[in-house]
Amino acid sequence: MTKLFSSNPFKGKVLHLSPPQVLALSFLSFITIGTILLKLPFASTTYISWIDALFTATSAITVTGLVVVDTGIDFSVFGQVVIMCLIQLGGLGLMTFAVLIILVLGKKIGLQQRILVQESLNQTSLGGIVRLVKMLFVFTIIIESIAFTFLSIRWVPEYGWKEGMYQSLFHTVSAFNNAGFSLWSDSLSGYVGDPTVNIVITFLFITGGLGFTVLADMWYKKNFRKLSLHSKLMMIGTFFINIFAFFLIFILEYANPATLGTLPLSEKLWGAYFQAVTPRTAGFNSIEIGDMTTPAILLIIVLMFIGAGSASTGSGIKVTTFIIMVLATITFLKGRLETVAFKRTIKQQTILRALAIIVISLLFIFIMLFILTITENAPFLIILFEVISAFGTVGLSMGLTGELSTVGKQVIIVMMFIGRIGPLTLAFTLARRQKSAVRYPDEEIFTG
Amino acid sequence: MTKLFSSNPFKGKVLHLSPPQVLALSFLSFITIGTILLKLPFASTTYISWIDALFTATSAITVTGLVVVDTGIDFSVFGQVVIMCLIQLGGLGLMTFAVLIILVLGKKIGLQQRILVQESLNQTSLGGIVRLVKMLFVFTIIIESIAFTFLSIRWVPEYGWKEGMYQSLFHTVSAFNNAGFSLWSDSLSGYVGDPTVNIVITFLFITGGLGFTVLADMWYKKNFRKLSLHSKLMMIGTFFINIFAFFLIFILEYANPATLGTLPLSEKLWGAYFQAVTPRTAGFNSIEIGDMTTPAILLIIVLMFIGAGSASTGSGIKVTTFIIMVLATITFLKGRLETVAFKRTIKQQTILRALAIIVISLLFIFIMLFILTITENAPFLIILFEVISAFGTVGLSMGLTGELSTVGKQVIIVMMFIGRIGPLTLAFTLARRQKSAVRYPDEEIFTG
Ligand SMILES: [K+]
Ligand SMILES: [K+]
Repeated sequence: MTKLFSSNPFKGKVLHLSPPQVLALSFLSFITIGTILLKLPFASTTYISWIDALFTATSAITVTGLVVVDTGIDFSVFGQVVIMCLIQLGGLGLMTFAVLIILVLGKKIGLQQRILVQESLNQTSLGGIVRLVKMLFVFTIIIESIAFTFLSIRWVPEYGWKEGMYQSLFHTVSAFNNAGFSLWSDSLSGYVGDPTVNIVITFLFITGGLGFTVLADMWYKKNFRKLSLHSKLMMIGTFFINIFAFFLIFILEYANPATLGTLPLSEKLWGAYFQAVTPRTAGFNSIEIGDMTTPAILLIIVLMFIGAGSASTGSGIKVTTFIIMVLATITFLKGRLETVAFKRTIKQQTILRALAIIVISLLFIFIMLFILTITENAPFLIILFEVISAFGTVGLSMGLTGELSTVGKQVIIVMMFIGRIGPLTLAFTLARRQKSAVRYPDEEIFTG
Repeated sequence: MTKLFSSNPFKGKVLHLSPPQVLALSFLSFITIGTILLKLPFASTTYISWIDALFTATSAITVTGLVVVDTGIDFSVFGQVVIMCLIQLGGLGLMTFAVLIILVLGKKIGLQQRILVQESLNQTSLGGIVRLVKMLFVFTIIIESIAFTFLSIRWVPEYGWKEGMYQSLFHTVSAFNNAGFSLWSDSLSGYVGDPTVNIVITFLFITGGLGFTVLADMWYKKNFRKLSLHSKLMMIGTFFINIFAFFLIFILEYANPATLGTLPLSEKLWGAYFQAVTPRTAGFNSIEIGDMTTPAILLIIVLMFIGAGSASTGSGIKVTTFIIMVLATITFLKGRLETVAFKRTIKQQTILRALAIIVISLLFIFIMLFILTITENAPFLIILFEVISAFGTVGLSMGLTGELSTVGKQVIIVMMFIGRIGPLTLAFTLARRQKSAVRYPDEEIFTG
């Protein structure tokens, strides 16, 4: 930790590491520390194995929310606070924390560190990084304070001052960071029809899932037409994906007696809304996911794969990657040469990047699925759901998490890690980059 | 039919249709004719419903091989010959047949027709189309004759002259056209360890699956280094995918008592080989697919999705599309600008085409899966397998085909049709193409 957070952390050995490598190593360090803290005797109320401590620490720092032990029962308040801290660390990005500490120490932030933060926030221009990080902390404190107040108003009367405020704090941090950890065994199922809980919690994770660059952009511009292309695509994409998911889930689950079937209409609407927005990539649930209809499960799997925004507290391939794939396909079908959105051309290199993200993501998912279909004794759909949930650091489960074999737990741990640092970042870390000086003539290939 | 096969079929109304539209309409016409022929009282030995006749005709003309009735038992010899003719028509491509008839009639082949054949064979240069089609017929006759002779030598002693030669002819046509139809209820399970059947049948469908342009290229050049980039990628890709699949299936099924477990080593090897090469997109099987292990099923699903070569008797996204995606991703990871294979640059437009094929294919698969998870009462894996099998016009099944509801049959019929004419061709047919005169400045978007 000292090395990473020292005022000049890139002197010496670390200098030879690329920013994605430092990012990955930092995550690994925090997972190690988190595991040790959660394994302390007073962190849990019952015996917790090393693999379960590792699983929980990874799930928290990657803001996934998949759980092998019951957070509210098996962990002590100390353990729960450790989890909450890991979530806040993981959600806001380890690198931005490093920058904050450097700022607080009054040292000037160097170019190398900026590149690091840039990777962490997925920012491509160096200018404004420091300003962005400062703003990010201000935003986080403001948004979490407001949400905490509203949730306290709802929960203090129900649970009393101490318990109500603690529940409010934990769920505020968990929701804004898209972590999906809950102190209740059935997540938010007790509040399926509660307007306050539905509005506050979904506002937190949708906001967190947009990404900080979008929030900053909105803060400064205050006018949709002046927003960057990225912000416009994120907002429009998030809106339409959520509307689409809401209608489908409402229709599919309307008459399902195990989910929305027995609820009054208003609670049906809240339930459909909550389950429509949670797969990207919040991970709370207010109805039992394993009881949903198969087509709804299929939809949720696709939503989990798409995920949230770049530089956000969510994962997945990202909304913009999804939109770019769709736009590039439409462009090709229309026989146009350039992919255009909001009167801006999307670079070929951006499209190739989107393609690379999809290919690498599918490759990792296939490998993990392949291993789990060997080690786990469960229906394919349930295994697929678990793998995509880990990949998107979503945290929803059809019930497999608690039943996982040790190998299965290891696979899901690796998948959460890959999902959070991003499959492309990992692939970059592993790939040996080289420039080719030779140019070759092109030749046609038939496809499809 | 007269209209399509007349010496000048593109005068009048038809002229306003695009080549993909004519291609799609021709397939639809033959499906209609096939359905009526199979519904004739003497075509079947038992009552066959209209939907089952339609399903069988579509399965035959799209060379899929999924069956709702038992070809060898429920159809009369007349019905079986109709199926064989539909397979040969569908496999070699309706448009090439039209060209042949035009050639036979001694008429000069016009530009419009050439474009049509070009779409059908997925050829992009007009030159050599006529020569290619002539050669294709010579190839087909030579290859099918040789295979027929070998199979007869194997089966005449077992079944007698008449039955042995009939079986040999039917399975030769079915295999070379990647149709997967068999007169035996258990496909080729009776010959899991038979070298002649394994070698001849797989030689036929692997050859057919390479695509005619590759065969013609090999015929003329006779030297790997002189082959076109397309041919090289197809041969190398097919070789390595098959080797990879062989090893995995051999390991995964080695001890499975329901498949290879009880067989001697030589039959284990033949069985692993056959099941490794059949998913792309032959459709015969020599062990029971539904009894295979889940990871092997997962592998087969991926192989079926990849499919065979362009301008071949197989479908799927195509081997070249798959290779281009992989190469483009590696290029991106290495930080290079141009995707290179065998010292040739792959055009950006080709990569975008590959991207479009994948996106549209996944979209169609999602829609069909979504409908079938509503209408069918079967585990998700079995439904997924069936949809991908129809998409790739493979014909393998875990046993769902015979159990499909009427809506389910309709969905699979549509999927086989889309799979065969190609999702991109269909999308082109539906899309309104337009050129944009306006150029917009580009802007960065964050992905992943
Ligand atoms: K989550
Ligand atoms: K087939």
